[in-house]
Amino acid sequence: MEEVRIAVDVMGGDEEPQVVLDGIDAALAADAALTVLAVGPEEIVAPFAESRPRVEALVAPDVIDMADDPIKAVMSKRKSSIVVACRAVKKGTAQGFFSAGATGAITAAATAYVTPFKFEEAGELHPLRPCLTSAVPNRAGGLTVFCDLGANPDVEPGDMLRFAQMGAAYARVVCGIAKPRVGLLSNGTEDTKGSHFTKECFALMRDVLDGFAGNCEGSDIVSGSYDVVVADGFAGNVALKATEGAAKFILSELKGALLGSLKGKIAALLIKNDLAAIKEKLSGDAKGGAILLGLRGVVLIGHGATSVEAVKNGTLATAEAVRAGLIESIVEAVGTIAR
Amino acid sequence: MEEVRIAVDVMGGDEEPQVVLDGIDAALAADAALTVLAVGPEEIVAPFAESRPRVEALVAPDVIDMADDPIKAVMSKRKSSIVVACRAVKKGTAQGFFSAGATGAITAAATAYVTPFKFEEAGELHPLRPCLTSAVPNRAGGLTVFCDLGANPDVEPGDMLRFAQMGAAYARVVCGIAKPRVGLLSNGTEDTKGSHFTKECFALMRDVLDGFAGNCEGSDIVSGSYDVVVADGFAGNVALKATEGAAKFILSELKGALLGSLKGKIAALLIKNDLAAIKEKLSGDAKGGAILLGLRGVVLIGHGATSVEAVKNGTLATAEAVRAGLIESIVEAVGTIAR
Repeated sequence: MEEVRIAVDVMGGDEEPQVVLDGIDAALAADAALTVLAVGPEEIVAPFAESRPRVEALVAPDVIDMADDPIKAVMSKRKSSIVVACRAVKKGTAQGFFSAGATGAITAAATAYVTPFKFEEAGELHPLRPCLTSAVPNRAGGLTVFCDLGANPDVEPGDMLRFAQMGAAYARVVCGIAKPRVGLLSNGTEDTKGSHFTKECFALMRDVLDGFAGNCEGSDIVSGSYDVVVADGFAGNVALKATEGAAKFILSELKGALLGSLKGKIAALLIKNDLAAIKEKLSGDAKGGAILLGLRGVVLIGHGATSVEAVKNGTLATAEAVRAGLIESIVEAVGTIAR
Repeated sequence: MEEVRIAVDVMGGDEEPQVVLDGIDAALAADAALTVLAVGPEEIVAPFAESRPRVEALVAPDVIDMADDPIKAVMSKRKSSIVVACRAVKKGTAQGFFSAGATGAITAAATAYVTPFKFEEAGELHPLRPCLTSAVPNRAGGLTVFCDLGANPDVEPGDMLRFAQMGAAYARVVCGIAKPRVGLLSNGTEDTKGSHFTKECFALMRDVLDGFAGNCEGSDIVSGSYDVVVADGFAGNVALKATEGAAKFILSELKGALLGSLKGKIAALLIKNDLAAIKEKLSGDAKGGAILLGLRGVVLIGHGATSVEAVKNGTLATAEAVRAGLIESIVEAVGTIAR
């Protein structure tokens, strides 16, 4: 396997740094060609690196936490683990970055320091908008790539086209879907449905997007009828949170129903493992977390509710995306990128 | 109880008309002060009315089905059950209308024939946009009013304010929530979140909306932290369908897990009734269906997947909304309505 160097944010997530360190150990055990740059305060990363040949310490004394204002924190905390790791990716010291820290801060730091590719439009160069993308399990037993999950609440049709192209590249390279069917999230599947904005996007995609499969609905995020569902960051975030809220609601209803009777309690014991498996499947970490597409490096954001398993999966998924050539495939998919 | 006359669309829904007729019988048995106008082809409604003192036949030979283009169908099929029933509501022959037919056609017919109230803005009168509204069960054990579910994909901030005012009136009068907390659907709960459009709505609502509780997220449709969640018809539809899709996905996963092992099969038998109850709760018919707010009469739209129970509940809910004085409370809530 190709040697890969991944920066991991030791301070990311809601748990103690030890959980992240254990996750790094698990990832190293699973991938013999992986080197990890452990990014965080010296007293944590230095002793951790010392005893491990495939770990290097990257010292970052500051911490950006979930409560910080993302942009202010990134501007003022230049020695935070998030900023230091993003700079390492830009310099090439690391080929990818995994963090379970605050999505807003990681997006802001990655945009400022890893930097987006530029695309050409009407003879001028503009930076791509980084598109927050995830692969969610669907009812057909596969994965559906869903973007933008909230990085860009206001966009132009051209941005939506590029989100679709990047999402399709991710589906091909990371999810192994040869010819992804791309659906435009709308308020109905008919061609005539949509807002003024999505109707403009529809016309543009119909003309130029490979694999465009028309409008889709909120239920198609998990239906398996589309391989990529593309939305602006506002609608995408609303749909993602609605999905998560519904899942929480049903599982809590089910728990309440089961624990309300003796029969139910017996049933709960019998299906405990099945329920845990469904919860795991729905956690949205099918590919280790959400990825920011459009940047000059792989940046993966894990759920804040960290576990050793989640850090392991996120780190391995970051390495997998690097090895799969995701960045190169993005450049190719958005035909107008000027490297 | 106050005498109420409700028109019911005998041709609405995916099942045979007999299912609707049985539902009407069940509603009449449950409400002694209810009279039903059975609207549909003469050969169905005439014999049904003949033997029932509290049923009147309203003959409508045409049928609008789910595949018809809504606006074209309403314009060309003037003797369809949907159009005939809407005209009866406008004339006052019926005080409300329940149908499990096509949402688009009912919305178009109700807008054209029941007609929306007009509101005053800058000295001019404009028709209210009918707002598709539903009460969904939440994790706190109560109901959350959610609108617009898809009638208006493109709106102005003033429309959103009126949706919020109408949704709050519905929460007060029909759901019995004295002081509804109204959330604006956004991509995060912080005041600074939102698209350009929802930021304008936020500023307007903060200034003039009673009970405005700020931004809320997709997960708040079922969290119970808000009594009313207001969105434009695009985002509202996306969130509603995402919620439905997630529910379907989880229940099918659960079924698959249970039927995959002997232990699971035993558990499935033990919790069969509990699962059916959860499914029922999630069907979104907590108040008989979705209601079109802003019109000069009560118009309730049931799920297309009709059952006797659903028709009964929808008919009773329509009568309940009439008796509760929903229309008057809407007029009062949107202060600028000119009657």
